[in-house]
Parts: sequence; C-alpha cells; structure tokens
Amino acid sequence: MFAVTVRDHVLVAHSLRGEVFGPAQRLHGATYVVDATFRRAALDADGIVVDIGLATRELGAVLADLNHRNLDDDPAFAGVNTSTEFLARVVADRLADRVSGGALGDGARDLAGITVVLHESHVAWASYERPL
Amino acid sequence: MFAVTVRDHVLVAHSLRGEVFGPAQRLHGATYVVDATFRRAALDADGIVVDIGLATRELGAVLADLNHRNLDDDPAFAGVNTSTEFLARVVADRLADRVSGGALGDGARDLAGITVVLHESHVAWASYERPL
Amino acid sequence: MFAVTVRDHVLVAHSLRGEVFGPAQRLHGATYVVDATFRRAALDADGIVVDIGLATRELGAVLADLNHRNLDDDPAFAGVNTSTEFLARVVADRLADRVSGGALGDGARDLAGITVVLHESHVAWASYERPL
Amino acid sequence: MFAVTVRDHVLVAHSLRGEVFGPAQRLHGATYVVDATFRRAALDADGIVVDIGLATRELGAVLADLNHRNLDDDPAFAGVNTSTEFLARVVADRLADRVSGGALGDGARDLAGITVVLHESHVAWASYERPL
Amino acid sequence: MFAVTVRDHVLVAHSLRGEVFGPAQRLHGATYVVDATFRRAALDADGIVVDIGLATRELGAVLADLNHRNLDDDPAFAGVNTSTEFLARVVADRLADRVSGGALGDGARDLAGITVVLHESHVAWASYERPL
Amino acid sequence: MFAVTVRDHVLVAHSLRGEVFGPAQRLHGATYVVDATFRRAALDADGIVVDIGLATRELGAVLADLNHRNLDDDPAFAGVNTSTEFLARVVADRLADRVSGGALGDGARDLAGITVVLHESHVAWASYERPL
Repeated sequence: MFAVTVRDHVLVAHSLRGEVFGPAQRLHGATYVVDATFRRAALDADGIVVDIGLATRELGAVLADLNHRNLDDDPAFAGVNTSTEFLARVVADRLADRVSGGALGDGARDLAGITVVLHESHVAWASYERPL
Repeated sequence: MFAVTVRDHVLVAHSLRGEVFGPAQRLHGATYVVDATFRRAALDADGIVVDIGLATRELGAVLADLNHRNLDDDPAFAGVNTSTEFLARVVADRLADRVSGGALGDGARDLAGITVVLHESHVAWASYERPL
Repeated sequence: MFAVTVRDHVLVAHSLRGEVFGPAQRLHGATYVVDATFRRAALDADGIVVDIGLATRELGAVLADLNHRNLDDDPAFAGVNTSTEFLARVVADRLADRVSGGALGDGARDLAGITVVLHESHVAWASYERPL
Repeated sequence: MFAVTVRDHVLVAHSLRGEVFGPAQRLHGATYVVDATFRRAALDADGIVVDIGLATRELGAVLADLNHRNLDDDPAFAGVNTSTEFLARVVADRLADRVSGGALGDGARDLAGITVVLHESHVAWASYERPL
Repeated sequence: MFAVTVRDHVLVAHSLRGEVFGPAQRLHGATYVVDATFRRAALDADGIVVDIGLATRELGAVLADLNHRNLDDDPAFAGVNTSTEFLARVVADRLADRVSGGALGDGARDLAGITVVLHESHVAWASYERPL
Repeated sequence: MFAVTVRDHVLVAHSLRGEVFGPAQRLHGATYVVDATFRRAALDADGIVVDIGLATRELGAVLADLNHRNLDDDPAFAGVNTSTEFLARVVADRLADRVSGGALGDGARDLAGITVVLHESHVAWASYERPL
C-alpha cells in the first residue's frame, strides 16, 4: 500500500461541553497542525498516489472554512463537541467529498482511503481514518 | 477508526544480554519518549475517544513505576532483555490493565486497542500494538 | 555561557486589532508550545543552571494563568494586541518576577537572563530575550 | 504486533515527467529523511524485532546506492518517475531482498513486513508498506 | 530583544567542487527547510515584530527564485560553492534587500537583524546571521 | 556570522547527588540527542564553515567515549554531578581540543566558537557556548 501525506495548520477558538473537559469548558483555542494522508494500492499513470499540489490546495481549502473562527458559532457544529478527534473526522470527510467531486483529479477517484491527524500540541494528537 | 495519542517520557538505566547488543551489554541508559495511542470505532457520548486528562494521568502513572530506575534491578524483568520493543509491550499491557480496571473511565472500556511507541533517539523507535 | 530550557504549552482564544492581521482580527485561538530558557555564566553548587523541577513548575504556573482562556477578556491585556511576540514577553517577564521572588530557588537569583519562545504552528514562532 | 524503526537520509537530484509536476519537471533535488520500519508478531530469542545495528547498516547500504546521485542517470529508473512514493517502494523492496538474503540475520527471516517512509520536507512525505 | 521566525522550504540540485566534499562533488540535490528570523528591540505600533503574512510571502518569493532548479546553472552562483552556509547568506541578504526596499512594510525598516537557518537533513543545518 | 550544526546521540547511565535532584539521585539513564554548532565570521576557501564530514566524525568520537557507559564509574567525572548542562560543556571542551589539535582540518582553526546542546527529552534540553 502506498500513501502520501501533506501538512497544513488551522487556528480556531471553541469551547467544550461536559465535566470531563474541566477548564476546556471555557472559551479557548488551539492550533491544529493537520496531516492528511491519501492511500492507494497502486500508483497512477504518473507514478504517484495523488497530485501533491492539488492535495495541498484542497486541504488548504477545507481548513480555510475553519481558520480564524470561533467554532462555537459555526452552524455545522451546533450541538456537538468540536473535540480534536471529531474535527479530524470533519476534515477527512470534507476531503473525501472533494475527492469524489473530482477536485483532486480524476485519478484520485481510485484512492483507497484517507487518514487525518490533528496535532493539538507537542504532547497530544488525534486522528480519524476512513475508506474512500 | 478514531484515535487519540498522548506523549510523556521516562529515564531508565539497564543493560542487555546477548552478543547482538555489542556495547549495549554494558550498563547504560536511555530516555524513552513514549506515545500511547487509544483507538475506537465510534466516539463516546462526550464526542471523544478517551478523557485525555485521564489518559495522560494513567500513562504518567505507568511510567512512574519505571522512571529514574535501573531496570536490571526490577524483579518484574528478571531474566528478560528490556529492549525498547519489549518495554513498549510492558507499557501497553499495563495501560490495558488500567483501562479494564476502570482507571480511564467507564467509557474507555469500549476502546478497541492501544499502540505504544517508545522513541529511544531521533533515529530509532519501537512500538507494540494490541487489541483491548 | 550555560543554558537550560523547559517546554510546556498553553491553549488560548484571542483576536487581534489592526488591518495587518487580516482574518486574525476575528476571534480565533492558538496552541502555543512554550520554551523557557534560563542562562547563567557558571553552574551553581549542584552543578546545574536551575532546578529543572522548579523551572518546570513555575513555567506551568505562569501558563496556568493564561490557559483555556479568552485573552480578550483578561484585564491585564486591555488595549494591547496579544500577538505571539507580545505574549513571549509576558511569559518571560512573569518568569523573571518569580526568579527574583525566589520561586526558582536562591541559586536562581544568579541567573543572567531568560528567553521565551512561543511556537504558534510548525511554520511560525516568536521569542523575547531579556536579562535578569 | 511489534515494530522497530530506524532513520537515515539520502540526497538526490532528479526530474519528473508529466504536466502534473509543474516546475518539478525541471532538474532539481531533494533530501529524503527515510524511516524503515520492520514488523513481526513475536520477539526473537534476544527479545527484539531485529538487530538494530544490522537494520541501520543495511538501510545505509540501500541508501548509499542512491546517495549524491542524479536519479535521471540511473538505468534502474529508466522510463519511470522517481516520485517520493515510488522511491519508498524501491527502498522497501531492496530492504526486503536483503532480509531474505540473510543480511539482517537469520532471525529477521521471521519478519512480517516492512514500511518505508520518505520525508521530502517538513510538510510532505510518502510511504510504501509491504509484507515479507 | 524580540524575534519572529517563519519556515518554508526549497528543493534544489547542485554539485560542490573540492575534495573536501567527497561524493557531494557529483550532481545531487537537497531539500532545505528554511527558517527566517527577524529581530528588533521594540514592537511596532501593531504590537508585532513584522507582518507575518508579508514575511512569509517575501521568504516564499526569495525561495521561488531558487526552487526546482539546478544551482550549477544559475549565473548568480558562477564560480562559487553553493554550500548550505553560503545559501543561508544568499537568502538572508535577499531578504535584507526586500526589507530595505519596503516589501515587508514601512515598519520593517526598524528591524535590527535577520538570521536564516537552512536544514539540509534531520542531522545537519547551517545558518547566517546579519544586522540590518 | 556563519554556523554549521551536526546532530548525533549518546546513551548513558548515571546518578546525581543532591536533594534538588529528587528521584534522579537513583541510578537511571538518558539518551542525549547532541547538537554541535561551529561558528565563524567568514567562510573558508571551500565556501564552508567546517568540513561537515570531519565535524560529524569528531562529534561521534567524542560521544563514543561516553556511549553505553555508567558515568558514575568514569574517573573523569569523579566528585561532580554529570548534569545535562555539565555534559554539554564536556562535549564542547573536548570538541574544542580536537579543533585546536587539527582533527577538523587546518581551516577549522579559524572557528570563532562552539555551542553544544544536549536534549534529554522532548521537553528539556541544556547547552554550553564557548569561544575558540
């Protein structure tokens, strides 16, 4: 199995609901350093997994919709906790939609899966892995 | 599949037996930077994989039993080589015991698996992955 | 010259005022991975720059006053932009106060200077360096 | 499952053919920081996955055949794009040959698989994973 | 003293002349992960060292003139060795020209100095530091 | 000012004397990831700070005298605490001796200074800087 990963980052504010979150129930924020991995069993005609330029552009576009925002105000996240693991799935699912929509090129429709890792600090990160 | 990882470290002395280890047969030591990953298929009611505060606390507790010690003197390791890969399993198994004992919360009993990575330097690391 | 550095992190929300900040004028947030460096010309009687346990504790205490907060609501920062470089000075100055107050031990009063680096992502960081 | 990883690096020049590569169609180069991971289900008689000294030596030997070269001139790569993901497979396959040839020791013949990651920058990397 | 650093990278081919370079006398290449640091004694009216957006854009522009090229063919480097340390000065000097030309904003003319670090691998890097 | 840095690592056991060290008074160990930086005002005739091959070799030689050893048994360290900052000076001074002895080449005698950083974990490091 082959894989290619591109890295970007996003800066958000949010709060989390539930006693388990302790002081993180207050409005605060985080930098998420985001790694998006694209997997496939065989390389395409150009000898690659995915056009890394398109992968970088589309990851950037997905993150731009979240960047420099207070996620508590985003209707897409009403009533849910925007935990790091939850946001990893949001990014992975939105990338998957872009793959199926053709934004990563026709060849990208043969991708087998996506994994997204969100690093919230040097000592904690979360990920979501899904097939395509 | 979702995953959450927390990082901590431990400082130990030890020696290894067997020609394969060369100069590492002498008493020496290492810093292990330790990554513990918890996996599950679906998020819990709070929208998380595991309470990251509890995960950090329990990883710290597991490492405290090893920290600032000469592993050659630890009865738990009598007659075995405390290689990096062996110690990765020790940490994973002890975390698994704490999960099943409830130390990471009731919800953590739905975890699917644990992976522990021990970084022994910037150029070498070992891991152990197990189901729960 | 000797130096010792300890690392911790803090999660905050804030907004920045001024056209130069573009979308960062909106309420957002950041993880700052914080490196605090203590310098001195000669080691103390124990052969160290500073008690690393106390240095870690005091850095943690300084960051706890900022952690999981919206800095826009902090009276200490009324009317100023809490830029990364500005916050580096805040952390350095508060550490300096603790050094002079004795919180890092009597020997720490011989420290020559402090540098604080705040990493806001994998591609940007800021620092402030001051004498003691 | 246990795993051990060793890291090394290689410096190469090359060009890539196809519009998808944009300016990378010109002759340029890259540092690849290379992580080679060896996996097996159970530890060997010495309590390890593989002799880390041999693993490091053999990874170094595989990379020496590529290092400080223009890959466009290497007959082994005639007519193919030496993309990062393609080179990850080259390194993995050449390591696999060395494992089966005994260069990593007799015990290494019980290895279950190899994964090779090539980091081409701080924001992009590629990998190839294969069984043994 | 305050400082702000931004990171980017560049991919080049080149060869080096002189016995000291051994196999690096052959045409090869490297990824340079580039950190550009801007220093000043006091923050500007916006509370910053430099507009990080402009700093990132101008570093990118300086690197674009080198990226995906064979430096052996660049007339600007005729007769010199494009060693990592030499290239660090090239990037620093070109950034300094842009600062004095106003490309980083009027306030940037108060910058005290620039340091550029070029990482050529995970085990080697070089830097050049200059006043402005 | 130009600088070149090379990285290596060393694995040692030791104990520290003094209440300030708490549990580190017990025999334990550490991996030190070691960065040695060489500085000079102008490049040499080859356009470099120092022959990076020789710098790497000599750093390796200095570390080999410490590697896989219990520093408590080393007569060179009798009666002193082998703290991270102390060991940074040991490495820097031994490198300085090799520079003045010619082991890094004749040109290296024009080096202005050396800085050695010892990383003891992902959250703590120490350094020593000296002129030549």
